[in-house]
Amino acid sequence: METQFIDWLRDRLPAHPQLSLGVGDDAALLNLADRSDCVVTSDLLADGVHFELDQCGAPKVGWKSLAVNLSDLAAMAARPVAATVSLLLPRAGGGRIARELIEGMLPLAEQHNVAIAGGDTNSWDGRLVVSVTAIGQSTEHGSWRRGGARPGDWLLVTGQFGGSLLGRHLDFPPRVKEALLLNSSYRIHAAIDVSDGLSHDVARMARASGCGALLDLQRIPVSDAARRAAEKSGDATRAIESALGDGEDFELALAVAPDEAQRLLADQPLAIPLTEIGRFIDDPGLWQHTGDGEQIPLTPRGFEHRLDS
Amino acid sequence: METQFIDWLRDRLPAHPQLSLGVGDDAALLNLADRSDCVVTSDLLADGVHFELDQCGAPKVGWKSLAVNLSDLAAMAARPVAATVSLLLPRAGGGRIARELIEGMLPLAEQHNVAIAGGDTNSWDGRLVVSVTAIGQSTEHGSWRRGGARPGDWLLVTGQFGGSLLGRHLDFPPRVKEALLLNSSYRIHAAIDVSDGLSHDVARMARASGCGALLDLQRIPVSDAARRAAEKSGDATRAIESALGDGEDFELALAVAPDEAQRLLADQPLAIPLTEIGRFIDDPGLWQHTGDGEQIPLTPRGFEHRLDS
Repeated sequence: METQFIDWLRDRLPAHPQLSLGVGDDAALLNLADRSDCVVTSDLLADGVHFELDQCGAPKVGWKSLAVNLSDLAAMAARPVAATVSLLLPRAGGGRIARELIEGMLPLAEQHNVAIAGGDTNSWDGRLVVSVTAIGQSTEHGSWRRGGARPGDWLLVTGQFGGSLLGRHLDFPPRVKEALLLNSSYRIHAAIDVSDGLSHDVARMARASGCGALLDLQRIPVSDAARRAAEKSGDATRAIESALGDGEDFELALAVAPDEAQRLLADQPLAIPLTEIGRFIDDPGLWQHTGDGEQIPLTPRGFEHRLDS
Repeated sequence: METQFIDWLRDRLPAHPQLSLGVGDDAALLNLADRSDCVVTSDLLADGVHFELDQCGAPKVGWKSLAVNLSDLAAMAARPVAATVSLLLPRAGGGRIARELIEGMLPLAEQHNVAIAGGDTNSWDGRLVVSVTAIGQSTEHGSWRRGGARPGDWLLVTGQFGGSLLGRHLDFPPRVKEALLLNSSYRIHAAIDVSDGLSHDVARMARASGCGALLDLQRIPVSDAARRAAEKSGDATRAIESALGDGEDFELALAVAPDEAQRLLADQPLAIPLTEIGRFIDDPGLWQHTGDGEQIPLTPRGFEHRLDS
């Protein structure tokens, strides 16, 4: 979401007694009852922007459109409950596309016990648009925010980064179970899911936390896809650029106090690796280590929808 | 939503322990806690289909995109809590459109105490698409469904019908407060909000209830807009056709037992009129009175997105 518009929106919107957390995090928290927060997130995907329907087919669009929302719930450590699916279908073949899209979504919904609860179906002369809202609930361990990192916290990430556009962005597994496991057994200060680029999203996390982040680029786990693409291009440095800025990795970035981070790294409780790639620091902004122990600014790269005002 | 696709979807989707009511009604009911159901509904509006941006301007699009969702919550007798707003903006002037749209939505949100809780913002080369999800909660009086009408029930409606496209579809007041008042003081068997045409939506209500509906066309309250348009066309019978089929009236149709309906009609507890326009009957389908006490079939007219399969 575009930063300038979000900032405007956050200033413009009035407070609400049942809104525990509003615009600007991975999802919103609504207090509907005494026991737990209702966690809500929406993502809209369009043909030609987030996928190419004629290349990937409708089932993968269905998977991705639910998965990006579940990834947001994971970033809040929320247990998914339901989703609504609104479709704007091209007139030609709209019925087939709608059914294939749902068929592609259902295995993921079943994996995470998500009810497809409703939505809206329309057709038009334009390209396919899919808008999904996912609803979850916080557990007894509470929910994560992106703004809870403290200077000194270690920056940990799940999985690997870069090259998602080569295929993984269409069939990635959202880190829902991983998040619930981590939240039940470890104390996590802050979390975000990496959708717009690792450097971009870590910078957001630091900004929301009122501190900075210092990355150790050597430690960032680079995906095989990004590495192979870099080798093919003849420029091996492209691999780390790809990991920093490609986005759509849908891995988790976590801020964890040093002791707890050491415990987590020793335990390695997930089926995917947890890696320490930096620290949160007092100096605002995003920084990288140089070889000789100094720190220099790191420009966030990644994807942001820029709006012509 | 297209009936055939909904039917397919309803068959295809597995049950879920927290989904009290799924696809096929005005909204879904999720049981997130002990005290009340979470009520969720989504509607997607597109430029050239549900509005013409260059004619009506972005503020009215903002109003309408929230109002149609609040109308669905009203049809469930749910108290609105929050909404998410996902935007797909044209590149030219996207930032301005986004802000104007939110500005047009906020007065309605404030009227109904709705928190704008989040969403998603994207831009593309196509036309404006707005997808809103509204979340409410049922009250201690429970929620309404469209499938609870019983043969013998009277069919009551709020307000007037027809001619909405002449302007009202962009600035109508969703009947949220009216629904909450009716639900707190009267026993309503079933409800629907009229979005796709009075005859179409009453037929849906009857079908969901496993019965039929018999309309008295003489009694249907026709809007001034529809009446004037019919007079202008030189064909006065067009007014009732317009009331039966135009849609986007966003009034409530209610099924109420005869005694309770008589009490309601005598009380007239709302600032807008409540009118009896027919009865629910054993014979499935939609019917109309002839002048001489017979009943003949009435073909539902109205709007349905037809999907090319």
